[in-house]
Parts: sequence; C-alpha cells; structure tokens
Amino acid sequence: MAVDTPTYLANCQALVDTRLKQLLPERLDSSLYQAMRYSLFNGGKRIRPALCYATAELFEPATSEATHRSACAVELIHAYSLIHDDLPAMDNDDLRRGKPTCHIVFGEATAILAGDGLQALAFEVLGGHSDDQVPAAISLQLVRLLASAAGPAGMVGGQALDLDAVDRQLDLAALQAMHNAKTGALINASIRMGALAAGATDQTDLNALARFSAAIGLAFQVQDDILDVESSTDALGKRQGADQALNKPTYTSLLGLAGAKARLAELHDCATAALEHFGARATRLTDLGNFIVSRNH
Amino acid sequence: MAVDTPTYLANCQALVDTRLKQLLPERLDSSLYQAMRYSLFNGGKRIRPALCYATAELFEPATSEATHRSACAVELIHAYSLIHDDLPAMDNDDLRRGKPTCHIVFGEATAILAGDGLQALAFEVLGGHSDDQVPAAISLQLVRLLASAAGPAGMVGGQALDLDAVDRQLDLAALQAMHNAKTGALINASIRMGALAAGATDQTDLNALARFSAAIGLAFQVQDDILDVESSTDALGKRQGADQALNKPTYTSLLGLAGAKARLAELHDCATAALEHFGARATRLTDLGNFIVSRNH
Repeated sequence: MAVDTPTYLANCQALVDTRLKQLLPERLDSSLYQAMRYSLFNGGKRIRPALCYATAELFEPATSEATHRSACAVELIHAYSLIHDDLPAMDNDDLRRGKPTCHIVFGEATAILAGDGLQALAFEVLGGHSDDQVPAAISLQLVRLLASAAGPAGMVGGQALDLDAVDRQLDLAALQAMHNAKTGALINASIRMGALAAGATDQTDLNALARFSAAIGLAFQVQDDILDVESSTDALGKRQGADQALNKPTYTSLLGLAGAKARLAELHDCATAALEHFGARATRLTDLGNFIVSRNH
Repeated sequence: MAVDTPTYLANCQALVDTRLKQLLPERLDSSLYQAMRYSLFNGGKRIRPALCYATAELFEPATSEATHRSACAVELIHAYSLIHDDLPAMDNDDLRRGKPTCHIVFGEATAILAGDGLQALAFEVLGGHSDDQVPAAISLQLVRLLASAAGPAGMVGGQALDLDAVDRQLDLAALQAMHNAKTGALINASIRMGALAAGATDQTDLNALARFSAAIGLAFQVQDDILDVESSTDALGKRQGADQALNKPTYTSLLGLAGAKARLAELHDCATAALEHFGARATRLTDLGNFIVSRNH
C-alpha cells in the first residue's frame, strides 16, 4: 500500500533532515551554525525535497545518492532565501512558521551570513566527495541546474522583481514572470534535478515534467496569495496579510479572491494533465500537486 | 621578456573582466544586474584571479578553460563577500575603492540580492556548459573546493568570527584562525583551483603551494592591517582606521606597528621559501607575493 501524502512528506522530511543534520552537526556551536540550524530545522514542510524524491521515483526503483543530494541542496537554497527575504531591508518579517525569524534571534549580521553559508553548502553537497558513487557528469549537471535556478536569472532575479513591485501596479503577465522566477525556478529545479539524478533522459518525459512544474510552481504561489487573504496568522505561522500590508501586487489583488481560486483550479488541472503521460506511475507526484493547491499553510 | 607585475595584473584583469562582462552584459539592465556590475567592475586589482592564473602557469603551457573559469569564480565570490561585508548590519562601510558602496547606491535590499546572485553565478560559471571541453571530474572538484572555501568552514565562517571579535580581545592564535578563514580560505582556493585546473597532481608540488598560500594569505591580512594604520583614506579607497574605529582586533593592535611589520617579513620569507621548490618557473608567483606584501592600497 502506498502511504498517504502527509506520511510521504514526513518520510521525505526524515530522509532529508537526517542528511542535513550530518552536514550541520550540533557540535559546531558557533552562532553562525546555530543560526543555520535554526532556520533549516524550523518545521518546514520540505515540499521541494518531496517533489525531487517523487520525480526521481518515476525513473529509479531505489533512491540514489544523487537524488538525496539534490533534495538536500534545493532545501538549503530555499532555507537561505527565506532568511534573506525576512531581513529588515527586504520583507522585514519577524515571524516565520510561528517562530521569530533568524535575524530576530541571531541579529541581522549573523542572519545574512547564515544565508550566505547555506547557499555555499548547497553547492558543497552537490560537489560530493572525491571517492564518489555519483558520476561527475551528473553531479556537475545538478550544479549547473541549481546555480541557474538560484541566481539572477532565477530566484534572486525574481526576488528583485518582487522588491521593484512594491507600491507599483503589475499586470498579470508581469506578476506571473516575477513568480516564475521567484518561486517557480526553484520548484522547477527540484523536479528537473530529481529527474536528472534518477537518470531520466527521454525528452517526452522531460517535457511532461516541465509542463507539470511550470503549472504547479505558479499554483503554489496563487495558493500562497489566497492563504495570505483567507488564513489566520496562527495557521500561517507568518503574519497574515503581510503582502497586502507591503502593498505588493498579488493574484488576489489582481483577480479578486474568486478569480484567484479559478486560476488556481486551472493551473491544477494543467499540472494533473501533464502527468497523465506517466499513467499510474505518477500517482505520488499527482498527490503532491493536490497537496500544494489545497494546503492551508 | 616577462612582463612586470603591474602589467601582469592588468593582463589578468583584462582576461577575467572580458569573461565576467559576458556573464553580466549591459543589456541586462535591471537594478539587480546594475548592482552586480557596479560592485564587480569597480577597479578591483583581481589579485585572486592573478594568483589562480600564475599558479596554473606552473603546470600548463597555455591557459585552459578550467583556469579561466576558476579565475572568474573566485572573483565573483570575492565581490559578493565585499558587498555583504559593507552592509550596515555588518561593517557599515560607505566607501569601497574610492566609490560609494553597493548598498549606498542601490539600497540595502538590492545589495543583499546582488551578493546572493554573484555567489550563485560563481557556481554557474564552474558548472560550465553541456557541450564542454573541461572534464566533468575537474569541474566538479573545482566546485567542491570553492564551495568549501566560501562556506561556513571557510570565508563565511571567518566573517562570523570577525563579527564576534568586535569589542573583544583576541589573542594572536584566535586572530590568525579568524583571518585564515575570512581571507585565507579564498586565497588558498584561488591557488589550489589554479593548480587543479591546470592538471597538477604531484603531492610535493601541491604541498609547496599549500605552504605558499598559507603564508601569503596571512601576509595579505597583516599588510591590510598595516595599511589601515599607515595609509590615507584617499590611497586606500576605503575609510582609513575603519577597523580601529570598530574596535576590531588587528595585527597592529596586538603586535604594534613594528611587530606587525616583522611578522609580515617573516610570512613573506616563508612564502618565498615555499616557492623555491619550483625554481625559476615560480618567478611570476614570487613576484605576486612581493606585490601583496608591498602594495600600498
């Protein structure tokens, strides 16, 4: 019997956390390491690692070392980006997953360095060891994918567009371009890295995954905007209405709540349709898609 | 005839800047890209790329693609670290190489993101292309070296130690450990990456380079501390006495000016002696060592 999605997510979290804890062991107890651990192990749902694992399962019977590393690396990048996003100069958030943000606990300087350190660690993880069971060519492609998704043409570029958007009126196309970079690039990388790590090479398979990841990446953000309006601060673990307070353009502000929900359903259909190519093999990934669009925090 | 050191540095700068400009072309004109270019092309001496090129020259007759990429990658990491170091929450410097620092010109948020983006680009450069003339195993080793040198066990860790040292009394051993990580790790990586990129494998050669880089990395910092006391803000291009103002421990505060100069001479001798292993082949690297200890800004 396949496990349900919450159990699957918990399993992925256990897998990735075991490895991340080896990377940042408690014995390293400077405030820098404490800050990195604080932000990395704060109860995140590990959705990106789960997408990576579930994609890899389409192509490999047992999880490979390359897949494990990819799952860790995408989460390290995600964790670093949250620390920097929360900084006073950026979104100035004091609450993340129900706890004070990194700079509130450790100070701004340490928070900046903790983010910097987590980004470097992501590439160190992909770099592996000298006596390595992962082919160098695969590891290197993973580095390339992640660096490009994380950098100025991807996540960091999207974050810059997001900053530029404060107090400005974006149209739907501009909002979508911003989210494709800010959130979509790393979600897309999680899926592509899972496929690559597991040895997927068939172009039809990769195209189907590209359609899935484009749709689910945007759906993720639309659902975020809906939650920012509908959910309570308690349920969110971050300030409800934070985006509205910053006067940032959102799907709900552009389309209205009902319009945003219709767009979410459309993207969800599109994501599900893309996975039909794989038949029943893709049940796990379909379930994760369902989870992403229906999550309440 | 071999060129003199200033000409050699100018040549290295031209080589690395040509490539970096292709990476960050003017047509990408968002404030994020402008900020990255502003900080990357602000007249830096490119000492790290020069060390990388000069080390590679010991082992390869013509500069390889792997060497060029290494030179670019170390400079991208160096540039990102300066942007973040200068932030108000860190050293709060408003002047760098005679110009306003990145956050003064572009704002803190964009400066944070520009640093983040430059770090990602460093790994993207090493990742190369899919149709690649650099063996994947070499590229991957370069990723591993740079990630480890840049991360919490290297540069970022050293920066954290530096922050912790404000208003505290460090002994010489602690000061040296801090600088070995903060400055030494990346200088060491520049030299090791140059050797690796050029195919060096002989352990005696690598050991000699390790001794050279350990000595010259520290010498670099001792000279920095001496310049912070002796030089003018105009010559330095950054605030003279900035470290003293922050009440940071320095070699001059611990050893006195004469003591720091004696330590510098000792480290310089040690660096030069390490290179004797290579005979006349290492003239270029010896000259760069001489330049580092005698530079006036």
